[in-house]
Amino acid sequence: MVTTQAVPALCGNPYAADCSTRRILDRIGDRWTVLIVGILGDGEARFSELRRRIDGVSPKMLTQTLRGLERDGLVSRTVHPEVPVRVVYALTDAGRTLLGPLRALREWSIAHLGDVAASQRAYDQAE
Amino acid sequence: MVTTQAVPALCGNPYAADCSTRRILDRIGDRWTVLIVGILGDGEARFSELRRRIDGVSPKMLTQTLRGLERDGLVSRTVHPEVPVRVVYALTDAGRTLLGPLRALREWSIAHLGDVAASQRAYDQAE
Repeated sequence: MVTTQAVPALCGNPYAADCSTRRILDRIGDRWTVLIVGILGDGEARFSELRRRIDGVSPKMLTQTLRGLERDGLVSRTVHPEVPVRVVYALTDAGRTLLGPLRALREWSIAHLGDVAASQRAYDQAE
Repeated sequence: MVTTQAVPALCGNPYAADCSTRRILDRIGDRWTVLIVGILGDGEARFSELRRRIDGVSPKMLTQTLRGLERDGLVSRTVHPEVPVRVVYALTDAGRTLLGPLRALREWSIAHLGDVAASQRAYDQAE
């Protein structure tokens, strides 16, 4: 008798297709994740504050990214039963371990901005 | 007289919309970039070797990602005029500075694989 596994394989090798590590990479490398985690690294925030500080993010994309991070156990969502109800997002302990790696990505992007743009111009002119 | 700037603003603040830092974040956080840079960190490689080692990547996606990395100045493409012609990809000096940040992302994904999967199962059951 053949039994099938409903849970995706936890292979831990992102070079293998269908390895769940790839989906986790997609989540944490996502531009909105990098920006949200960066803000929550300074402390909890409400949806409206995140939306205001991340210029140009659509409410739909922000909701979707927060829900994904919540599902992954990286962000908590706390509903304070006040009037009006206050909903607050914060990093979990697991989410805090992402701060270092994502800060490195953000800092790399800022530091190499000029070089990358110059390279793109040179490449496009040579085409 | 008003002059317009053809080159996108190099604002260096990924929280501002239309800042080129966001596009750079998209590039370096991309799953294929993470995997390609990981392999090239060990030394140069041919297209066929990259394709073989990155299980499940389509030739189109591999070509597209390599071209983007080349345009960004992070990967070099060298054509050796032999018979048959040998084309080799390698990290540039700028590309090598990505090794640390992207290794951190890869290692985070592998280390937190089990916790993230457990959180997802708990979240889905509570829905």
